[in-house]
Amino acid sequence: MSQHRPTGASGRAGVVPALPDLPEATVARLPEYLRALHQVAEAGNDTVSSEGLATAAGVNSAKLRKDLSHLGSYGTRGVGYDVALLIDQIEFVLGLTQRRAVALVGVGNLGHALAGYAGFASRGFRIAALLDADPERVGEQINGLVVRHIADLPQIAAEEPIAIGVIATPAAAAQNVADQLVAVGVTSILNFAPCVLSVPEGVDVRKVDLAIELQILSFHEHRKASLTALPTTPGPGLTSMPFGLAGAGPQEAVGS
Amino acid sequence: MSQHRPTGASGRAGVVPALPDLPEATVARLPEYLRALHQVAEAGNDTVSSEGLATAAGVNSAKLRKDLSHLGSYGTRGVGYDVALLIDQIEFVLGLTQRRAVALVGVGNLGHALAGYAGFASRGFRIAALLDADPERVGEQINGLVVRHIADLPQIAAEEPIAIGVIATPAAAAQNVADQLVAVGVTSILNFAPCVLSVPEGVDVRKVDLAIELQILSFHEHRKASLTALPTTPGPGLTSMPFGLAGAGPQEAVGS
Repeated sequence: MSQHRPTGASGRAGVVPALPDLPEATVARLPEYLRALHQVAEAGNDTVSSEGLATAAGVNSAKLRKDLSHLGSYGTRGVGYDVALLIDQIEFVLGLTQRRAVALVGVGNLGHALAGYAGFASRGFRIAALLDADPERVGEQINGLVVRHIADLPQIAAEEPIAIGVIATPAAAAQNVADQLVAVGVTSILNFAPCVLSVPEGVDVRKVDLAIELQILSFHEHRKASLTALPTTPGPGLTSMPFGLAGAGPQEAVGS
Repeated sequence: MSQHRPTGASGRAGVVPALPDLPEATVARLPEYLRALHQVAEAGNDTVSSEGLATAAGVNSAKLRKDLSHLGSYGTRGVGYDVALLIDQIEFVLGLTQRRAVALVGVGNLGHALAGYAGFASRGFRIAALLDADPERVGEQINGLVVRHIADLPQIAAEEPIAIGVIATPAAAAQNVADQLVAVGVTSILNFAPCVLSVPEGVDVRKVDLAIELQILSFHEHRKASLTALPTTPGPGLTSMPFGLAGAGPQEAVGS
């Protein structure tokens, strides 16, 4: 199969064709490819090999070729991928051809940082509203945006549809904020509060818990220490550990 | 099999038994279970059913039981899991029985927020050092810690071993910072810079890219829009989309 050209109209003029339900792992890698492609373009290259792009994106090139094949991009033998075309395709699939409005709720420490994070603007998003429940914070200006009270959310959503709600409140407030976002029609939420949100069918929630990232690294630190502390290398012996820690193959887990 | 008691010594007195290489997905869920268990404990409950804990952690209970079985925890029929014991076990496995020292490099917007993030302290970590390359920032006090120059890193690492390095610098500086962290013996890095780090074997890197989280949500927003915009439901027809977007089953991708 050869590389298909995106019909400009579908990407730009709002005519939205159905997108396949790409594997979540592929969806998660597309932004990495996009970032890498922009690097390649900035370096002045019009084409890139799958190996070159894979390296820049930090993935294995076979996986990259498979991911991009889901988009109908197979590159051209001996030439590689057309950088500008592939950027168009990935931005189209990720829905970045229009700048999505983000409402950020909770302008504490983290919220402030997020509000000031240049990466959002440069990568397809626009913080359309900053909200907080604390009257002390309402009226405060952050990056040219005035913090409004969470009670204004329905009015704000009426002024312009909010594509994504970002929750940067304490855990105790997060569910209530999520309910309010859902009530005004937000169907995608990025949650930084260390708690589980319950949302209705059709609402996507992604969670970023910074402490969890550290705890996962801590496990690997601990494990590395335990291995170096042992005369023997890990193996069958592991099944007779304190706590009866049983070694389990990843396959086994993937199946669970 | 019954629930094994952790040999107190192994957890506390620094005698480190080897840990099995738990499936990455299980490792990633353990912190969620730990957070949920602390909730349960704070609510005054000594035991919790797998269903109750699964709900609090936001996972399916069969998956939870399988994950915990890797730790040798099977609970007690009709009683459930001993909350205090399970907290001990998970904290032991995650290596949280000692507070790990974190060095945070880059105290810009995000770095400031991270330095002020209470979640680290309350969940097993201690920010031991704040570093920045900008002389303007050196000497600044954030949460009682004085920002030091990145050039002081070797001295800081000599004063106390750094378990985890957190990189909150611009992308252009991140690789250089990672090299310096690795040079002083740091083997776990949490990278907030939107770039791929190359590190030697044995160094674990986890990456948090806030824009990527939004782009993944954007895909789902875009897809939901494309489905509602269509008279027909998605299906075989998807294979004849612009770009030749081919629907692929998740299984297919997991295999790739």
